[in-house]
Amino acid sequence: MSNETTAAQGTKPENIVYVGKKPTMNYVLAVVTQFNSGQSEVTIKARGNSISRAVDVKEIVVNRFLPDLREKAIRTSSEELVNEDGTKSKVSAILITLGR
Amino acid sequence: MSNETTAAQGTKPENIVYVGKKPTMNYVLAVVTQFNSGQSEVTIKARGNSISRAVDVKEIVVNRFLPDLREKAIRTSSEELVNEDGTKSKVSAILITLGR
Repeated sequence: MSNETTAAQGTKPENIVYVGKKPTMNYVLAVVTQFNSGQSEVTIKARGNSISRAVDVKEIVVNRFLPDLREKAIRTSSEELVNEDGTKSKVSAILITLGR
Repeated sequence: MSNETTAAQGTKPENIVYVGKKPTMNYVLAVVTQFNSGQSEVTIKARGNSISRAVDVKEIVVNRFLPDLREKAIRTSSEELVNEDGTKSKVSAILITLGR
């Protein structure tokens, strides 16, 4: 994430936590840390099989750590990947936005 | 889900497709069949690792089969399961509601 000029306004740019194959609590910690450092909105993003983990992250953050958060949006989309052999695959993605 | 008395109004009760471990296209077909038989709203539900497949089902239904559908809601929740050894686990769930 690059720092954008909107940072001059005093609001940090929207923050995204990409969820992959690491243990769920790593991502929970990343989200909680963002909010505790003053972020007012954090988006959790995942693709393919990691989508389930992204939902776990959201549930754990909200139920166990920051119950005052609101779920601002959950969106899904399809993205196209090019495989090593040149063929294309579609993969689903999820974006979960939490905010105060 | 129990049948509710609103069925007397001529509208069928809300329909749910539970996504599990079967091939994705089985569930896609189930959702498309529900809409083609007159249902105006179908909810796709999954828990745990099947959440990713539920998102795939939604993306395939909307992008390939029924592009006129609207995404009415995506909700997530936590459910508690009792394991065989008596311990309890929390599992995340997703509910994706599509409608015309």
